[in-house]
Amino acid sequence: MTELKNDLLLKALRKEKVSRPPVWMMRQAGRYLPDYIKLREKYDFFTRVQTPELATEITLQPVHQIGVDGAIIFSDILVIPQAMGVEVLMEEGKGPSLPKTILTQKDIDTLNTANAEHHLKYVCDALSLTKKELNGSVPLIGFAGAPWTIFCYMIEGKGSKTWDKAKQFAYTQTELTHQLLQKITIITIDYLKAQIKAGADCVQVFDSWAGALSPEDFKIFAQPYLLQIADAFKDDAPVILFPKGCWYALKDLSNSAASGIGIDWTISPQFARELTNNNITLQGNFDPAKLLAPIPQIKKWVKEMIDAFGAQNYIANLGHGITPNVPVDHAKAFVDTVKEYRIP
Amino acid sequence: MTELKNDLLLKALRKEKVSRPPVWMMRQAGRYLPDYIKLREKYDFFTRVQTPELATEITLQPVHQIGVDGAIIFSDILVIPQAMGVEVLMEEGKGPSLPKTILTQKDIDTLNTANAEHHLKYVCDALSLTKKELNGSVPLIGFAGAPWTIFCYMIEGKGSKTWDKAKQFAYTQTELTHQLLQKITIITIDYLKAQIKAGADCVQVFDSWAGALSPEDFKIFAQPYLLQIADAFKDDAPVILFPKGCWYALKDLSNSAASGIGIDWTISPQFARELTNNNITLQGNFDPAKLLAPIPQIKKWVKEMIDAFGAQNYIANLGHGITPNVPVDHAKAFVDTVKEYRIP
Repeated sequence: MTELKNDLLLKALRKEKVSRPPVWMMRQAGRYLPDYIKLREKYDFFTRVQTPELATEITLQPVHQIGVDGAIIFSDILVIPQAMGVEVLMEEGKGPSLPKTILTQKDIDTLNTANAEHHLKYVCDALSLTKKELNGSVPLIGFAGAPWTIFCYMIEGKGSKTWDKAKQFAYTQTELTHQLLQKITIITIDYLKAQIKAGADCVQVFDSWAGALSPEDFKIFAQPYLLQIADAFKDDAPVILFPKGCWYALKDLSNSAASGIGIDWTISPQFARELTNNNITLQGNFDPAKLLAPIPQIKKWVKEMIDAFGAQNYIANLGHGITPNVPVDHAKAFVDTVKEYRIP
Repeated sequence: MTELKNDLLLKALRKEKVSRPPVWMMRQAGRYLPDYIKLREKYDFFTRVQTPELATEITLQPVHQIGVDGAIIFSDILVIPQAMGVEVLMEEGKGPSLPKTILTQKDIDTLNTANAEHHLKYVCDALSLTKKELNGSVPLIGFAGAPWTIFCYMIEGKGSKTWDKAKQFAYTQTELTHQLLQKITIITIDYLKAQIKAGADCVQVFDSWAGALSPEDFKIFAQPYLLQIADAFKDDAPVILFPKGCWYALKDLSNSAASGIGIDWTISPQFARELTNNNITLQGNFDPAKLLAPIPQIKKWVKEMIDAFGAQNYIANLGHGITPNVPVDHAKAFVDTVKEYRIP
């Protein structure tokens, strides 16, 4: 195994002292990059995801063009329902859809939870190829969707503002809900283990829709499964949990086996540190809309953000995925400002 | 003026002792009620809003059919841009659109801020007629959108998941942003005063999209204008502020001239009380998706919610508008449970 030339990200996750915080951006491989858009015009979404050479090329683009301190594999959280035997369609610009939603015990019984490594071989191949191409320059980040978020899609069949069908299922068929969440958890752990075996240095779990839950419901339907995942990797590789909008869960999650927690911009860095008692690495929390401001303003805000979090036990990132309308030089200004940061 | 037979809502807003908490539901006059849907089939949206007899009929439906302790006038927050001279279109089931968005100083200069009472006479007429029809049974609630939320629509021209165009405008044209927010604030205060003159007993200010802002940006772009509105009514009528998603603002807003703060379900009642030091009436925060659960479960949750908030200085409500898919008897179970609540 090639030794990493830049291991700032892993050091921050291990709470080791760093010379400056590491930086990457959620959705850094994607729609704001002209070279990505060129590939999107030639290959449809699942071709891009399922062809290791394409996924690798897309994963490497922001490393070469923006200079981030970590490469997150280009893929999608909905590969898990696919591996479980559920059809997922992706119409460009329209978001995903799952024509056959989960309704009954029988639907759940027929779902596959085995052999993630086989069903998602193309992701593992993309990771191995990317790892080779990176040649130790920066760490490689694997990822999966969190069980609650995957559950939301499997019940609703598409995106939702309120996720009320998913919640209705959870409230009225609570036993089936936990069965399904558990099945998703099992294959997700298996899948993330395969990603690490294939070359991922750490993994992030995206709970994009957990913020639709109340603090009480989060503890019932989201937290136990996030904790299972974190526990499964405690001797293996660092796990970053990102339950978007769930500032209320910070305290509990900071006492978990996870190495990092991603937060969005609806909580101040100071309060996030207070809630987590400074005992876990925090990641975030720049509002992607702020990348639309003039560059000098971006640079000022980034410095203030690092000052507020503190430069140790911290990973500079956005609080949500970068939006397609961000100019490339603005994204680069974000990354450059972190790299220029001098610890006072 | 007819004396109110049921003034629980006003008592709670004045922090007077009540025998049980008052209850109403955001969007209680609307899409889950079969009688509303019948009217919707006959009259388009703005006909329903602009015809006092229809608006009154719709406003009274939940009072008669669900038994809420307050009637909120049937109207829309986007009547303010209309009164300012901006065209607003409403396509059934598709949400609002504003074909001509605000781009320049000149666009802002041409906006009207005067004579809300004249431009929105139909709302005032609907309030007066409703007040008469209510005949003192329950208080009448007026409302308006908050300046930040109205600003979002005037800049973006339609709904958005991220409101990044509105934020981009705010970050890059900060001076124009404050000019526009101030103009909206002036006409909104004028409009709410007219509503009270026409018969509203209290008013609610909906800041539906303030939760897209960071705590820091909320203090710059939302809070000052909410405070101006609250201040303008301190000797006039109770104001309820509802900045959805802005748990971080609770402390500051609890020290404002407002009489109540609406909260959503992403903060626990206990923590909301702690942040507000129990010195303001809180309203909320039942997740509307929970109304899709079986009735006995709804009743259990409602009791727990009141226990958690405490029955005094509290208005039982949802944490967001009721969704169209809620069965009428489930909505009624919510209201009935509050009305059956016995203070321990």
